[in-house]
Order: sequence, then C-alpha cells, then structure tokens
Amino acid sequence: MDPGHPFGLGTLPYGSFTAPGSPDPRVGVAVGDLVLDLTAAARALLPADAALFAAGTLDGLLAAGPATWARVRAAITGWLTDERHRPVLEPLLVPTEFTTPRLPFTVADYTDFYASEEHATNLGRLFRPDGAPLTPNWKHLPVGYHGRAGTVVVSGTPVVRPSGARRAPDGEIVFGPTARLDFEAEVGFVVGAPSTPGRPVPLAEADRHLFGVCLVNDWSARDIQSFEYVPLGPFLGKSFATSVSPWVVPLAALRHARVAPPPRDPRPLPYLDDAGAEPWGLDLELTVTLNGHQISRPPFAGVYWTAAQQLAHLTVNGAPLRTGDLFASGTVSGPRREQRGSLIELTWNGAEPLVLPDGGERAFLLDGDEVTIGGTAPGPDGGRIWLGEVRGRVRAAAPG
Amino acid sequence: MDPGHPFGLGTLPYGSFTAPGSPDPRVGVAVGDLVLDLTAAARALLPADAALFAAGTLDGLLAAGPATWARVRAAITGWLTDERHRPVLEPLLVPTEFTTPRLPFTVADYTDFYASEEHATNLGRLFRPDGAPLTPNWKHLPVGYHGRAGTVVVSGTPVVRPSGARRAPDGEIVFGPTARLDFEAEVGFVVGAPSTPGRPVPLAEADRHLFGVCLVNDWSARDIQSFEYVPLGPFLGKSFATSVSPWVVPLAALRHARVAPPPRDPRPLPYLDDAGAEPWGLDLELTVTLNGHQISRPPFAGVYWTAAQQLAHLTVNGAPLRTGDLFASGTVSGPRREQRGSLIELTWNGAEPLVLPDGGERAFLLDGDEVTIGGTAPGPDGGRIWLGEVRGRVRAAAPG
Repeated sequence: MDPGHPFGLGTLPYGSFTAPGSPDPRVGVAVGDLVLDLTAAARALLPADAALFAAGTLDGLLAAGPATWARVRAAITGWLTDERHRPVLEPLLVPTEFTTPRLPFTVADYTDFYASEEHATNLGRLFRPDGAPLTPNWKHLPVGYHGRAGTVVVSGTPVVRPSGARRAPDGEIVFGPTARLDFEAEVGFVVGAPSTPGRPVPLAEADRHLFGVCLVNDWSARDIQSFEYVPLGPFLGKSFATSVSPWVVPLAALRHARVAPPPRDPRPLPYLDDAGAEPWGLDLELTVTLNGHQISRPPFAGVYWTAAQQLAHLTVNGAPLRTGDLFASGTVSGPRREQRGSLIELTWNGAEPLVLPDGGERAFLLDGDEVTIGGTAPGPDGGRIWLGEVRGRVRAAAPG
Repeated sequence: MDPGHPFGLGTLPYGSFTAPGSPDPRVGVAVGDLVLDLTAAARALLPADAALFAAGTLDGLLAAGPATWARVRAAITGWLTDERHRPVLEPLLVPTEFTTPRLPFTVADYTDFYASEEHATNLGRLFRPDGAPLTPNWKHLPVGYHGRAGTVVVSGTPVVRPSGARRAPDGEIVFGPTARLDFEAEVGFVVGAPSTPGRPVPLAEADRHLFGVCLVNDWSARDIQSFEYVPLGPFLGKSFATSVSPWVVPLAALRHARVAPPPRDPRPLPYLDDAGAEPWGLDLELTVTLNGHQISRPPFAGVYWTAAQQLAHLTVNGAPLRTGDLFASGTVSGPRREQRGSLIELTWNGAEPLVLPDGGERAFLLDGDEVTIGGTAPGPDGGRIWLGEVRGRVRAAAPG
C-alpha cells in the first residue's frame, strides 16, 4: 500500500481490512491514499446491496455476478464524484496507512498456470537440460496444476523459510531449510460468479465469471521443488506460502489494457482458439523490487495463454468454477534478462548472481530480504493506472 | 449404502443426509440399516454439543478436536445400547434407503498421494516405459499433488465422461471425450482439527488431527492425463470428479486395524521415520465391483507410506492443516494382478481387456458402467467391520 502510487478514480479496487479500534473486517474500496469503508457506506447509500458487504470479505460481491459488479462500481463512482455525498462518506474514509489488510476473499481452489513461453523455456533448460525446453503439450494447452488454497496469504504476511527434503550436491538426500528460496512474479485472476457443472465456459463468456486481477508472489523453494516434482508436479516446494496483493482490481478498470495476445503456432484447438474473438491479452507491466532495488520489469502483454483461455481450459472437462477460485498466470518473464520474473531465471540457477546497488549479491533469497511485486496498466487518459503491490519478507526457518 | 453390509455398533460412521419431506441437511450416524438423525438427537440428549451438528455437515464436529470426538462417540454408543433412550431415539432413526446422502463435509484442500509401491511401479512402466518405474524421490518422501477440491462429490453422483485434449494414435492432437476413462480405488483421510501455521505435525501427533477415513474413487481420464501431466502433474485428467463414500468412519473404529507398515529401504528421513512409533499401517481390504461383478480386491495393509507420514509430509514445510482437508492414499494395488486398483493396471493399458462374467470385455469404462468400491477392516471380535462404499455410474459425454 505504497502512498506514492495512489489508486485513482478509474481503478477503485476492492479489498478487506480492519481499522483501529474495530476488529470487525470490512470491505474497502481504495481511492487515493484513503480506503472507503464500503460495508458501512453501502448501508447508508446502497441498502439493497448492503448484505453483500456485511461479512467484510469480497465473497458476497464476487458471487453476485456482473450486473451487480457494474451497479456497485457505478454507485461508488457516483458517490466519490458528487459533493452531496461528502457528509456521509467523509467519516467512512480511513487513511490507508491506518488500515490492516486481510485476505480479500475466501480462496476456493487455487490453480497456477505456466503461461509465459519465456519462463517455461528458461525453466525447462534449467530443470531438464538434456531435453527440449518446452514439453510437447505446452503449445497445445495451458499447462497448469492445482496449488494449496489454504496457504494463500495477504501481502505483508512474513514468509518463513521452509524446510524439506532435497538432494545435496554430493547426491545424498538431506532435510533442512531450503537453500534456494525464490519468488515468482505472477498475475492472479479471481473468479466471481460460479459456472454450471458439466458446462464448459467458452472464451466469449469469460467476463461473465471473471471478477478481477491481483498480483501474486508464488514463493518457491527450488531445491525442494526439483527433487519432488517428478512425476506429479510441484508440491511442498510451493505450498508453504503464496502471497496476493490486498486490492483486487476489477476487470472494469482494465478495459484500456486489453491488447491482442501474441501469435500462436500451432493454431490452438477450437475451445482455445481466440482468433477473431475479443482480445484477452492484457498490457500489464510488473516490477519486482528486492529490498528497495528494482531488479526486474516483467511484461505481461506477451504471455502466450490468456486468462480467457485458462478459464476455458479449467472447465472444458466439465469441472465447474466456484466463487473464490483463484488462478495465477505462472511466472511472467519477458525475452530480455531484466524482464525475468524469478531469481532462478535472473541468476540462471545461481550461476550468475545479481549484484545489488548496495554491493550485495543474491543467488537466491536471504533471511530478511523483502520482495515487492507491483504493476501498472494503461488507463483511460493515455497514462497508466496502478495495480497495487504484493509484499513479503523472508523470515529465518523455524528451529528444527 | 448396501443394506447387505450393515454398519455395526463398533463402527458408527458419520455422514450428512436429507430425509423425505425435510430439505434441511442433517448429520447422521449409520447403524444397521438405519440412520440416526444426530442433529435432532443431540438437541435432546447432548445439548451442550448440539451446535456442532446444527448446520447438517460434519464441519463443526471435525473442527472440535479429539476430546469432543471421543465424548460424542461415547454418548452415541451409550444411547444406542440403553433401552431407556428408545422413546427419544426411535422417531429419529430413518431407514437408510429413504435418506439421500450429501457430501459429508466441506472439502478444504484435496491432496492425492501415490503411496502404493505396486501402483507407482505399474504406472511408471506404462507411462514411462524407457525409464526406471519408480522416480528417484519415491522411496524418500510420499509423492503427492494437489487436486481440485471443488469437484469432490458424494457417492452416487453420476460421472459424466469428460472431454479434453489428447494425442491420437497417429500423433495428431485432438479434442473429444476421453477414450480411456478409469477408476482408482483409494482410501481417503479426513482432517479434523487444524494445525498451527509454521508448526509441522510430527508422526506422534497425527491422531490429534486425523478424524477418520472414507473410500475414494479418483476417476481418471488416462489419455488426457498422459498428454497433460508433464511437467506439472495431473490436472484435467483428474479434476472432473472425485467420488467419496458418504460415511466417514472415525479412527476410533479402526483401532483393531492398526498393523505394522511394510519395511522401508532406505530408512526414511527423521520426520518420516516411524520405526518404533505407534504403527499406522491399516489392514483395510478394498473390493472393486464393476456392474455387479467383483474385479479386484486391493489390500491396503501393504501401502508403503502411512497416513501419519503423509500428514507429517504435508506440514513439514510449515503449511497448516485446515478442517476439511482431504488427502487420499493414491491407488491401492497389491502385488497380484487381481489386487490392482485401476483398470489401466488390470488391463495393462487396455492390452489385456478384462472379461466379465456376462461375457462383456472392458479395456476402459463404457458409458453406463457402474463402479463400486467397498471396504472392510478388522473389528473388535475377530471379524471384520464394513467401511461403506463409494459408487458412481458413467454418463455419456455432453454433446460437444
């Protein structure tokens, strides 16, 4: 919640917070360096929808669907631009710095994709140096896996260095704190309205279900991951923590960010073929900051598979979406070195450590390191809007 | 809910049901061919705990922890063996055949392990014929992955044949209904009391968190799975449906089933080393029935990794357990052909189809096929107690 990058009226992201002296969680809308207590404001100004916000999480709003999302956003915009509502609103605007963010919604299933061709290629080279970097399925479907919903945490939650089993350089299997703790800069998509079991969601209906985006740090213990992940995929190397930004930016704020996705070769199967469809590429620009030093600027626009394709894929076997399903893009990496979204890529598995402006070197994260992932998107006036940030500091492993 | 195998007083499993003329879900306890309406009975006979059952799911009971589990079980046993409670209980006992089972608890995270050495070896031979059948990590840690919690369904729910992308025999990538629909016979473990973030659950504390077991059919679309699963694991080939038995058998009913686990070589890492600890092997015997014909009898006692080890592994990186976490053993297969827990093993990927007593052949499941997985465990008097069953019938794919 960096006050140097306030949210404008065109963004109006939603979150959940507590304020001093009041333990009850509230739904908030961020504007400038203030948070509007929407739980209270709706009781006064939008009583027909007030029940959606009573529990203090986004769950009710998410489930209500696109017509409600549009009505609520229009109402809030109206309040904030009409002086007549000032007497009601002013006491309900809390300086952001006095608020404590909470996980904004109840995470149903958490899925992580692997949608950046540059990232998948880099990881393939590092994890499977003897094979082709991209697996044969990669350009035919959005490769992904389920993660642990129970360890999705809100920005600011400390991340304790996890322990696990791994193969030591001498080949022995050892247990202990990870020596290769990493971040992954990702974009998360939040499902609002559920879908019907047995009815896949076609590309053209993605916006009936997708509510908005957040920023995600998919913390990764590379040594644990590389030992455990064959044949069933990443597990404990990821499940210790996944951090999300506190403010969910509604898709309505991203209409100027929509761009054509990159060209696909081969042409995707019909359920994934978005040629001629409304474009679902998003021109988001991420920044990764380590202890205050910017170390990467991953561009999201070039990511191979879009959120609409991921949604179509998630449901094509008949599985329904639930309110609160969260799916992340996978690490966003661009073609240039300074656009890579993880340390394992930036340092090529530690072989080429980063040199920080303070003279420090990093192959992987040290205890005390703080990683912040921020983002922007094209806004209504040719400028860019802020998407918020997700922050986390590494704590030393618990004593074994 | 086969009335030919009634639950005895030593089992007393818990579930959730609705009865005719009353849409509200209730917690039930199965005894004989009756279901006791525990939501109502507790209001009359155990008022201090009645709130645990008010919502009609096991969620409240699960969260309450082992002292409550013991107290409630003792109370129910007392009621059912004391004639004086007959006037209160009799109107609350519903014939099982008149009840409709519901998913017994809210599934938090669903994890599937891969703990049978015979199964992992068989699948390794079939999926990776050019490599060693067991991956190098398999004997060092319980390999597992997260599945889709949102598609765990209760026994009896029809399973619609899923569609997906797969590689045709000519090498082309095609989309359509799976041609290799399979079952997997598994045992599921239900987490009751949550654990503390950052505090791994040691082997000796498993029974503070584990509430009970159910039977699981982890339906699998082998052609979708084999195309998608590298490098991030199974995804859409599994996520269309996972069926669970309606009755959760509490661990308290399985104390006669505890046996020594199989010998492990190499000796596991300390957090997984159960030498000298209370044994967590379970002498459960499963049966798999296809359209009324028994086709397999997988033995659970020989499964390499125990539930206590899986729990220790799930939390060793600091991830907390949540009430309603469900983890399954992975397919249970014994060393003999007639003990294999999936069709891909029984028919060796279709090369040796099963011949059914009615003359039919099966390589994989056909539309209309019904699969039932049942189980028994050693009981108090030298006999065996019934563990219930999980049933599902295959429906034709939805029109594309």
